[in-house]
Amino acid sequence: MKIFKTLREFNDFRVSINKEDIGFVPTMGNLHKGHISLIEHSFLNNSITVVSIFVNPTQFGPNEDFAIYPRTLYKDCEEIHGLEMKLQRKDPEKEIIVFSPDSMNDVYPEGFSTKIIVSGVTDKLCGVKRPNHFEGVTIVVYKLFSLVNPKIAYFGKKDYQQFIVIKKMVRDLSLPVEIESCPIIRAEDGLALSSRNQYLTPPEREKALILPKTINASNYLFSKNSLKVALEKFNSLKADVMSKGKWEYLEVYDAESLEPVTEKTISFLIAGAYQSTAARLIDNTVVKNNYV
Amino acid sequence: MKIFKTLREFNDFRVSINKEDIGFVPTMGNLHKGHISLIEHSFLNNSITVVSIFVNPTQFGPNEDFAIYPRTLYKDCEEIHGLEMKLQRKDPEKEIIVFSPDSMNDVYPEGFSTKIIVSGVTDKLCGVKRPNHFEGVTIVVYKLFSLVNPKIAYFGKKDYQQFIVIKKMVRDLSLPVEIESCPIIRAEDGLALSSRNQYLTPPEREKALILPKTINASNYLFSKNSLKVALEKFNSLKADVMSKGKWEYLEVYDAESLEPVTEKTISFLIAGAYQSTAARLIDNTVVKNNYV
Repeated sequence: MKIFKTLREFNDFRVSINKEDIGFVPTMGNLHKGHISLIEHSFLNNSITVVSIFVNPTQFGPNEDFAIYPRTLYKDCEEIHGLEMKLQRKDPEKEIIVFSPDSMNDVYPEGFSTKIIVSGVTDKLCGVKRPNHFEGVTIVVYKLFSLVNPKIAYFGKKDYQQFIVIKKMVRDLSLPVEIESCPIIRAEDGLALSSRNQYLTPPEREKALILPKTINASNYLFSKNSLKVALEKFNSLKADVMSKGKWEYLEVYDAESLEPVTEKTISFLIAGAYQSTAARLIDNTVVKNNYV
Repeated sequence: MKIFKTLREFNDFRVSINKEDIGFVPTMGNLHKGHISLIEHSFLNNSITVVSIFVNPTQFGPNEDFAIYPRTLYKDCEEIHGLEMKLQRKDPEKEIIVFSPDSMNDVYPEGFSTKIIVSGVTDKLCGVKRPNHFEGVTIVVYKLFSLVNPKIAYFGKKDYQQFIVIKKMVRDLSLPVEIESCPIIRAEDGLALSSRNQYLTPPEREKALILPKTINASNYLFSKNSLKVALEKFNSLKADVMSKGKWEYLEVYDAESLEPVTEKTISFLIAGAYQSTAARLIDNTVVKNNYV
């Protein structure tokens, strides 16, 4: 495993390799099993996997947790190293590269003032309460793509809207990269893994389980009922759970376009954001329309 | 000269050539000597010159002249062909390619919804009265760059702010292209060439000459005086000419950053926009600070 903490060093390395199949996993560090599954996926399918670790300021709102977001580079690198050793037993010629720029300037050079705005798919769900969040995501992902120049990049389905926004940016800007998504990884109690889960006290966590339970129940409703019936049942479920906790949203959209659903929708996204005392948690599921 | 009117045909051609030195001149057609000078410049410095002709809707405001903007593809191609024949006498192996997509879909595929916003340099001069103009310019130039993949692209200095905005986008997004600017070409009466000049009646044109005359006089003021004196004289010139016609702006900025000028500014941009009855005209000049 190589670790590069400056763009200059990373660039020298990037230029020196002539491998074309580079898999890329962009992260903000504080890795959990969700990230690890992305890295593993990339390792199995590419000769080199680049993992970036960069807590990106532009995707945090002014009242969000940028300052306290957990930064655990040393532990993250140990984790990746352990994973690499395990995976190299089968594929000794493959490797993992960590790119963790120390300096903001390496990603956003002085005077940087350009935004990439994807409209439509950003004006709902998380885009409503986090108005500039996806602008921050698109620009950092764009910049990292242009620095890493991967063949394929891996994103977790937990941030489902982010995955759709990035796919849209890649399509609209004809970026030379494939976007792949990997399944949500959950803790034993059902909560989707997130670096922000550690902000929760045990009783808060217990209460927050209403989020994955509701998502799971919704999945069942939409897979077992026609759209009309599913929506009726979903709305009464929604009214019930919303009365029991502080939700930001609980919505159903077309999983491809994030447009409203119709009888012809091929798959449904059911996505929720739950505001616990110390953390905002999101979760979702995608259900094939069995009645189309 | 080859002419491609679909992206598919242009792409096939683009893939088939393995020349790396492609010069690119993006235009909206209705070519005049300003465009021709850009094409000539590109021809002399590259083995292949691609000229795009595409009237880009996204850079026009809702009350602007998109519908009536002159579309003269046949005449433009004749002009380019004549130029190519002349230039090939010295460089017979070089060639000019015209890419004029017939279909909006070739540039903006269905569902396209991404913007590239360069802030700072766009919030003054033409950016004030044409609020979404530069968003339209950046996205179409980005798209054309990604389709044409040129080594170098040429822009006229008449649209000076556009040139700066594009340079900034290219820098911020690390686009693999060089940006070069070419001098303003003027008619005998001094008016900077523009497709919009044809909207003017002869008396309107006569009146509009106050624009190049003022720009020229300002150039003299800033080259012959210290900044303090130049600004005093410029402000009284400005008050005088503004009382005589309908100006949108007449301003001085740092020619590199478009920030306010100081004693240390290396070169000054003096830029004006004049509203004639039937056309909005712009002009500018860049003056080295001889007192720095």
